[in-house]
Parts: sequence; structure tokens; C-alpha cells
Amino acid sequence: MAQKPAIPKGTRDFNANEIAKRNYIFDTIKHHFQLFGFEPIETPSFEKSKTLMGKYGDEGDRLIFKILDSGDFLKRVDDNQLSSRDTSMLTPKISGKALRYDLTVPFARYVIQHQHELNLPFKRYQIQQVYRADRPQKGRFREFYQCDADVVGSESLWQEVEFVQLYDAVFKSLQLQGCTIKMNNRKILSGLAEIIGESDKLIDFTVALDKLDKIGKDKVIEEMLDKGISREAVSKLEPIFNVSDGHIREKLTEIKALLSDSEIGLKGIEELEFIVNQCLSLKLSDSILDFDVTLARGLNYYTGAIFEVQAPEGVKMGSIGGGGRYDDLTGIFDPKNKLSGVGISFGLDRIYLVLEDLDLFPENLLSNNRLLFINFGEFEAGHALEIIKTCRENGIAAELYPDADKMKKQMTYADKNEFKYVALLGGNEIQHGTLALKNMKTGDQEQVVQSELMDKLKAILN
Amino acid sequence: MAQKPAIPKGTRDFNANEIAKRNYIFDTIKHHFQLFGFEPIETPSFEKSKTLMGKYGDEGDRLIFKILDSGDFLKRVDDNQLSSRDTSMLTPKISGKALRYDLTVPFARYVIQHQHELNLPFKRYQIQQVYRADRPQKGRFREFYQCDADVVGSESLWQEVEFVQLYDAVFKSLQLQGCTIKMNNRKILSGLAEIIGESDKLIDFTVALDKLDKIGKDKVIEEMLDKGISREAVSKLEPIFNVSDGHIREKLTEIKALLSDSEIGLKGIEELEFIVNQCLSLKLSDSILDFDVTLARGLNYYTGAIFEVQAPEGVKMGSIGGGGRYDDLTGIFDPKNKLSGVGISFGLDRIYLVLEDLDLFPENLLSNNRLLFINFGEFEAGHALEIIKTCRENGIAAELYPDADKMKKQMTYADKNEFKYVALLGGNEIQHGTLALKNMKTGDQEQVVQSELMDKLKAILN
Repeated sequence: MAQKPAIPKGTRDFNANEIAKRNYIFDTIKHHFQLFGFEPIETPSFEKSKTLMGKYGDEGDRLIFKILDSGDFLKRVDDNQLSSRDTSMLTPKISGKALRYDLTVPFARYVIQHQHELNLPFKRYQIQQVYRADRPQKGRFREFYQCDADVVGSESLWQEVEFVQLYDAVFKSLQLQGCTIKMNNRKILSGLAEIIGESDKLIDFTVALDKLDKIGKDKVIEEMLDKGISREAVSKLEPIFNVSDGHIREKLTEIKALLSDSEIGLKGIEELEFIVNQCLSLKLSDSILDFDVTLARGLNYYTGAIFEVQAPEGVKMGSIGGGGRYDDLTGIFDPKNKLSGVGISFGLDRIYLVLEDLDLFPENLLSNNRLLFINFGEFEAGHALEIIKTCRENGIAAELYPDADKMKKQMTYADKNEFKYVALLGGNEIQHGTLALKNMKTGDQEQVVQSELMDKLKAILN
Repeated sequence: MAQKPAIPKGTRDFNANEIAKRNYIFDTIKHHFQLFGFEPIETPSFEKSKTLMGKYGDEGDRLIFKILDSGDFLKRVDDNQLSSRDTSMLTPKISGKALRYDLTVPFARYVIQHQHELNLPFKRYQIQQVYRADRPQKGRFREFYQCDADVVGSESLWQEVEFVQLYDAVFKSLQLQGCTIKMNNRKILSGLAEIIGESDKLIDFTVALDKLDKIGKDKVIEEMLDKGISREAVSKLEPIFNVSDGHIREKLTEIKALLSDSEIGLKGIEELEFIVNQCLSLKLSDSILDFDVTLARGLNYYTGAIFEVQAPEGVKMGSIGGGGRYDDLTGIFDPKNKLSGVGISFGLDRIYLVLEDLDLFPENLLSNNRLLFINFGEFEAGHALEIIKTCRENGIAAELYPDADKMKKQMTYADKNEFKYVALLGGNEIQHGTLALKNMKTGDQEQVVQSELMDKLKAILN
């Protein structure tokens, strides 16, 4: 009858061990966010649908989880509408809220809603779950965390320089060497579209170009032709498929030459050159800065810098982070209030998989500095709880095995749960004001005077 | 055109200050959960609907947020069903997932799903959001955190003793004096229903009784009569409305006398006496243990102890925590696998309001130990970033004002954002290898040699 319960596709349970590893990453990222001057905000798990819909393109809209209205959810639907079975028309009538799809749009909403409390430029970080009705695959889930840092209210390119350093600082702390921070600039992409005479097809052009490392040059060209970009235009793109594999400065020089007739393209080069020069002068510890002219990232709202981070060579994993500058994100909520912003995101789940792959998690993330008192029955247990109370008041994690089970069962429990020490407090020990302390690793057991126990435990458990 | 965006009713944004206060409570609770030997788990924000529905009564089912299926959500609905507009019938056909309503049912699901990895008794804590389509009011939200600790796999009453101590330890850490931990036992309620001859109306009886402190004796009696409980039966309840206002032991004695003919009732008294005796012997630091025979709590799954915590007298707030023993919770997922469990919950949001009311949050939860470098232009900013990088490597939060704005604007920013120190690094300072450090509180400014800066900052910022 009863089916074994399971969780929805693309979601996960986490046990103590996994949580310790995840917190190690969260805490590292949070630590650097704070060192770089970002302050935390949190927003609700769900927003009004109208806040989210239309901000991520048609594909994004489809992937947003909608929440069914409570009560009579059909009250705003008439019979004709209902019988039409037009789900796109019906959805907004039966669902006014939706789970957050990313942290950027809620952040833009936050900035506009709270603008009178904010002191610009506003540097915020946000580490929360996002939800996508995506097809689950390795490193892609329907509920996952994003770790975002953004600044709004300043167009300064120093922010981009800071973000490159922030990536590098986090990866250094995680001992994750050899990540590539790829950069591009939306203005460079606009410039390319301009010089091939296809400015009006900028989106189709960038969407196709962005797929280069996934589908290869031939398919990219095919997609461009499909989208109505002329063969002549495409042929002018040849140089970008053949950018040298050299130093980032060489790549910049090559693309700069290609863009010599495009004002916006040269502006993009100039911005990127500033960022690259400053980053190279400040030096990166463990990461590689690179320029990838094909990098577009799906989202349409970037207007300047575009970032994407790749895991170290040899680790098969999509991007582990990304971001960019969006000069008019808040404009979607208040056209008179276009604040420039720039931000980056860390992909927690993928970073987790990368650290796992490379065996980079520190040992002993899960403390076993805990003490288990064997339960010898009501009288002894009552005494044990008094000592346990004192342990806890001294910051020592201690607990009583709940039942007066056979010793073997209790010791097996202590063993399986990796208690470092077990305390035995029987009638004899109570009478003498002592207890026996057993080291579960070595098996050694010693009698300890109760009044000296706290000092003893502090010495051996820390 | 564009409307000012807002968040859904009953949800909240949190700023850095609020997050610092919330984290203070979370961290305190987590610290004690760990000292008491609980380990963390996390479950998805949404579960399959069938995992949640039917577990919280009809009212609970209504308050569960359902997630609309992705894509063609009407594909499992035929035309007749659709035109019926029967939303209760339609809901499960168009929505297979739902936001978690509490942490207990997901925990039961977790235990059954992962039983082969678990080592019983299993002590877990879980601090995550839950979602309820409830009418928002003070201290009641549609998205809020629960902080739960539960043990499954042991019927030992020592667990109940531990939970009373856990409440007390947390409240002591929070300096929250005078909370009342009210206890009852489901078996006592069953015994009462038995001695008045209304065992088959146990649920109606307890639901009505539970409202005593909200609606008063007369309305409780009215509700019981409405539910078909006889006037004669109700008259037998008179003593429980007149339980003395004395010591918990006196109350136990009075109710024990009333239950002398009920085996199950006396069993409940015996359990409660054990817990009370142990707790009084171990002593509570800051909380008061009480017995409230009218305490039933809405949920139907409690089978033994019932807990509810009230804020200190004078603070108007519903319960700030609660819990109890449920001997067959996992049975809802696997009838052959009934594990006994007992747990408690802390209501984060209400504890927050209580601490706010009583002015109990520590000062300086939000660190202002941060250093802002004034931006004098590209050349100077580049130098500043080098020093900033060194600051961060030394664990000092430092940042560059992004734009070379007028000094006054930058200083105002530093002031409003409560930076403790501002660093001025102009051309002159760069030439001499110094910088000027301004204490924003006192206004004092001193020249510091760059090579001595880290030692200086560590001394003044910590």
C-alpha cells in the first residue's frame, strides 16, 4: 500500500557530512564577500509572478516554478477561458506567485523597493536557493544555491577589477588552482555585429556565438545562417574563430584590429583593456584571466563586462561562476531609475563537485569531539545527565545514550556515530566520584575523578 | 506605467542588520543543538504533494502552497473534470509538488527514505524555511524559519528531559529569562476523554480544550456541546478548569486524582512525573517548567509528551516554541516501520520579536571594522588596490570607493555606511610611502608608513 517516499526530481536531501562540506564553501565565499565590503541581504523564496515573468526570455519564463493560488484558484477564469486549455493565458490567472529563478532580478526589485534606505553605491551579497524547472543533469538541479555579489549605483570599472580579484581570492582559499576567469564585453559583441552589418540581429548572433565551445564552428555558422544572417556577414567573422591561443593581450590586439571601424566595439575593447591591465598589475594568485570573444552568456541584460569561470583543465564541468555588467537592470521596474550594476555569481553545487573531484575538501570538517555517556539505568542516567549538563556549560558536546540497552549495542552506536570518547558512569563510579573514559580510537580506558573531568576533557577534545 | 515592485503578502526582505540579528539567534540555537548531540540535515524546499497532503488535517492541506506543474499542466485533466471547476479534485492533477509546510513530515520522509544509512537512535536538527498560505499577522508569515531538533528510534523519556534542558540552555544563552515551558501528555488527554465517557470524541475534545487561553472556558464548553459532547460529560471536566495555580507537582497531584480510573491517563501522569522530577532535580536556569492540562496543540500526531513555550510574562506573543512525542509518525510512510520520535521546534521569528521587545540583542552584531580608501583617480586608485589586496590577505575588510567623486561625497558615503576608518592615499602619500588614516568617529587623522599599516590596522580594528 504505502509507497516508499521519495523527493521530487532534481532536488536533494543533505546529510551532516554534505552540509559540513557545503558550509565550508559557503563560509569561504561569505568570508571574502565581507572582506571585499559586501553586505548581506535576503529576499523571499517566492516573488509576485509579474516581478519575475518576462525577465529571463521565453525559455526562462517556462522554467520558472509557478505557485498555484490558494483557495478557489479558478475564480478569475471564465468558462471560455477555461475550456480553451490555453495554459499560457491561464497561468497568470491561477498563479500570482512564483519561485525565484535567480538572485539578480529579486535584487533589482529590492533596490527599487528600498531605494530610500540605501546608500549608493550599494554592495550586496546574497546566498540563497533558486528554483528552475530545468531538466536535471550532473551539476544541474531544480533547487540550488547561488552566491551572488553585486554593486549598483556606480559605473566604475574598478568594480570589474575587484570582481576578478574576488574570484581569485575565493578560489585561492578553496585551494582551487587553475580556474580560468573568461571575460568579454557586450560592446565588443555589438561591435562585431556592427562590422558584419547585422546589428539588428545582435541577439541571434550572440546566442549562436555563445555555443561555440559546445557545438563547434560549423554548427554555429549554420545557426547564424538559419537565423537570416548573410553568408557574407558570416565570412567576415572568420578571424574570431581563429583568435590566437596566446596571451590575453595578443587576443585583445587581434580583436581590436578587427573592430577598428566600430565605435562601440572599440569602447568595449577599451573597457576590457583597463580591467585586464589593472588585474595583471595586481596579479592573480591562482586563477588565469582570459579573453573569450565568443562568450555571450544567455542573459540579455548584460551591457558591458561579461564573466564566466571555468573549472581547472581536466575537470569536466560547466561554468562554476559567471556575471557581468547590466546598465539598466533596475529600469525594468522603474524606467526613470536606471542604475548601473555589475555582479558575479558562484555556483555552489558545481564548485562542490569540482572540490570533490579534485579531493580538495579539508579533512575533519565534521567534528567528532563528542562524548557519549553509556546508559546504565535510571539512577546512573540521572547522575550522568548532571555531568553532561556541566560538559555543555563548558562548551563540550555530550549526550546520554537514551535507553539502558545492552552495553554492546550502546558501544556499537558510539562506534558507528564516531564518538571520540565514551564515558562509563556506573554505581561504583558514582560512589567514588569518578568515571571511566574510553578512547574509542585506541580502546584505552582510564578512571577520571569527576571534579577533574572538565579540565581533562578540554585538554583531550580540543 | 511601471508599478513600484513589492513582495508577496506575508513575505519579507531582510537587510544586513536584520540578518545579523537573525543569525545571532540561529547561531545560538545551532550551537546548543550541537552541544546536545544533534546533527544537521537539510531537505528540499518542496516535496511531492503526496508526501505532504493529508498529514496536517484539512486546514493544513488548505494552507499548503502547491506548485503548478510545468509545461501543459492540464494534460491529465479531461474536459468534464475541467468544466466541473472542482478545485480540490483538480489540484492534484495540475500540481504534483508543494512547498514544505513544516520540517517534521519531511523529516519522517527522510528517515524512511534513508533508513539504511541511519544509525538509530537518530538525532537530527534542521533549520530551514517553511511555507504556509496563512493569513499574515504579527509574528506570523507565509515564509518563515523553523528550527527543529528531533530524535527517532527511542522511546526513552530521557529525551523529553533533554529537550526541556535544551530549551532552557538556548533561552539562557539568549538572556531570555522567564519563559514558561508548558507540558502536557496526550495520554492524559485521552484519559480525560475516557473518564468523561467521550473517548470517541477525543479529537473534538482536545481541539476545543486547546483554545481555553484564547476563547475562555464558556466558549470551550460551547464548542464541546456543539461537537456533540454531552452536558454531563462536560460537567465532569469542571476540575480541569479549576486546576490550582500552584506548583507543578500540586497540579500533577490534582489531575492524577481525577484520572484514578483511567489506565491510559495514569500512564500519561507517570510519564510526565518522571520528566518533571528529573528536570527539577537537574534544575532549570532561566525557564519555568509548568503543566497545562489544557495544552493539546493542533497536530494530531502527538502520542505522548506535548511541549509549548510561552514568552516571558508581559510580552504579548503566541508560543515561541513547541513539540512533542509522536510514536508513529514514520508509519504514515511505512506502516511496518513505526519509529517513535520526539522533537521540539523554536520559532525564530517570534523569538526575534521577543528579543526586540525586551531589547535583548547584543550591541555591535554588525561589524563596522572596515576601511574605505578614498578614490583620487586612476593612478592613486591602482596603488590603493594593492594595499587593499594586502589588507584582505591579512583578514581586514577594505574597499575602494569606486568613483573619483568629490571628497565630500565620498566622506558622506563612508559616514553613512559607518566605516570605522577612511584611508587617504594621494600622490603625495604614494611618493612618500605613507597614507593618512582618518578615524571616522573622532575625526582624528594620522600619517602611517605603509609598511607599518597592517600591524597598525590589526591593532586598531580588533
